[in-house]
Amino acid sequence: MVKLSELGEREVVSRISSIVMSDAAIGPGDDAAAIGIDDDYLVASTDLIRRTTHMPHGMTDWQMGWMVAAVNLSDIAAMGARPLGLLLSMLLPGEVDLESVIRMVEGAQDCSRSVGASLIGGDTKEGEEIVLCGTALGRVARERILLRSGASPGDLLAVTGPMGLAAAGYLALQKGLEFEEGVKSLLQPMPRVAKGLSLSACGGVTSCIDISDGLASSVHQLSASSGVFFHVQLDAIPTHLGVKEISMRAGEDLKELLLYFGGDYELLFTLEPESLGRVRRELRDELWIIGEACEGGENLLITDNGVVELENRGYEHFR
Amino acid sequence: MVKLSELGEREVVSRISSIVMSDAAIGPGDDAAAIGIDDDYLVASTDLIRRTTHMPHGMTDWQMGWMVAAVNLSDIAAMGARPLGLLLSMLLPGEVDLESVIRMVEGAQDCSRSVGASLIGGDTKEGEEIVLCGTALGRVARERILLRSGASPGDLLAVTGPMGLAAAGYLALQKGLEFEEGVKSLLQPMPRVAKGLSLSACGGVTSCIDISDGLASSVHQLSASSGVFFHVQLDAIPTHLGVKEISMRAGEDLKELLLYFGGDYELLFTLEPESLGRVRRELRDELWIIGEACEGGENLLITDNGVVELENRGYEHFR
Repeated sequence: MVKLSELGEREVVSRISSIVMSDAAIGPGDDAAAIGIDDDYLVASTDLIRRTTHMPHGMTDWQMGWMVAAVNLSDIAAMGARPLGLLLSMLLPGEVDLESVIRMVEGAQDCSRSVGASLIGGDTKEGEEIVLCGTALGRVARERILLRSGASPGDLLAVTGPMGLAAAGYLALQKGLEFEEGVKSLLQPMPRVAKGLSLSACGGVTSCIDISDGLASSVHQLSASSGVFFHVQLDAIPTHLGVKEISMRAGEDLKELLLYFGGDYELLFTLEPESLGRVRRELRDELWIIGEACEGGENLLITDNGVVELENRGYEHFR
Repeated sequence: MVKLSELGEREVVSRISSIVMSDAAIGPGDDAAAIGIDDDYLVASTDLIRRTTHMPHGMTDWQMGWMVAAVNLSDIAAMGARPLGLLLSMLLPGEVDLESVIRMVEGAQDCSRSVGASLIGGDTKEGEEIVLCGTALGRVARERILLRSGASPGDLLAVTGPMGLAAAGYLALQKGLEFEEGVKSLLQPMPRVAKGLSLSACGGVTSCIDISDGLASSVHQLSASSGVFFHVQLDAIPTHLGVKEISMRAGEDLKELLLYFGGDYELLFTLEPESLGRVRRELRDELWIIGEACEGGENLLITDNGVVELENRGYEHFR
């Protein structure tokens, strides 16, 4: 009898995945599942959040609804798919106000509509704590789907936006500092659907994942799925001046914010070097090369002070 | 500020639905949502269950997993759709054994496979209580979809199986009586996918719903969605001898078990009278006519002692 708290989330997920016999074209282990529908894939992702742990203090009801939609739509984005709709199941205590619930639903709806999808169904049940479970559906042409598993040695590793904003927003809230952009990134992350569609459309992109649990963790996941190893250049990781400032004022290592905190819902992807110009144009320059894929060894972080192992840690449940 | 407990589940759902702007072909308000995909509809349903309230004492981990799959696949069945897959999100306390979780996943997987689908994805998060959230996906040709809204005056009202089994199983467990068939029906309900596909295929079926919250409640929902009223013949409602026996031994009104308890995952549907022979053959005689649709008035229950209003009550949350 081994308890989940002794294993940690990743090991639990790995044990569960080992018993699942999925008929899906893409089963558990990627950002979303995919089922063949004619010439396309239907992709589907599910994710639940609780009022307490996942939610930073000060998050509004509307933001909580936005968040559950965003985390699921971000998975659809990472597959290069176009969102079809969102389903929302809610566990709600009887003493919750109807107005709070309406605002949560509005948040989920507003996030869905921001990426051209809508809230198509749901369920409510009574429970002891507020739990929102979202399921996002999307569709992508079979040959256009982006997976975690396609990176090859020599591919470039890139991100679609700055890192550390959500972490800095969290620290700002915690320490009473001013950093509006970070707080917004933390509490109202944008699912990068348009960027995912661009990456899927332009060709030459070999793998993709969303950066929900932290950049380092996502690099390790691409590495494990693709069977390659990445050398990440710390200096090349894009961030905001505000993130650097907050890290100094809060006395936190900037590297921690950029690599290990999580909450930056950008996309991490690999591309063939010869496609760089085209991908860059397609993304309207919202692309930063942060490293490259290598054949053997381990995932490394290259810093001014030398080369170190890129630690495989990030936000993890049950620990 | 009005609390959910002052409104009850149906009113809460109705208030939420009023603010949802869905792009789906079939949005909130039917058993499942439907989105047009080429010549078909993709149907999707989500439903969550908690270890505590929804689960009768004595339910095993495997049965809990089965249950969350069954309630969702039952919604897919009620739309006349073929299941494509199930997604499962789990909220789990850290002190839960891995073995328990594996058995829950196996239960969900076994139920899915029993109707030709599989578990295609999921998510785990840490929480204070065990909550399972399922999302079932299915597909049906556009002209074959079964909705709650198609019944016309003159249509016959029918069910696909006996009522009261789950209620009698619950009473048997509670009072320490023997009724294996009822207990199995309560703890391991079968999603009626094959029956739903038959109803969808044979033509002449005008509306359909699954009977999760109780027969009376489902009749009222078909009535409200279709704009007709039903006259239900109490004597015509099929049941098992064992249900009658348990109701007597437990001192509970049989009518309560048949109409108001819920948990009988059969299908309630309407059909054009001229299609009866064909539908009966298609369902291999698993069809019982229990009433008919009328133009005006109210939903009535016809008993040996006269005609009474069919009460609109059943299992409801937040109350």
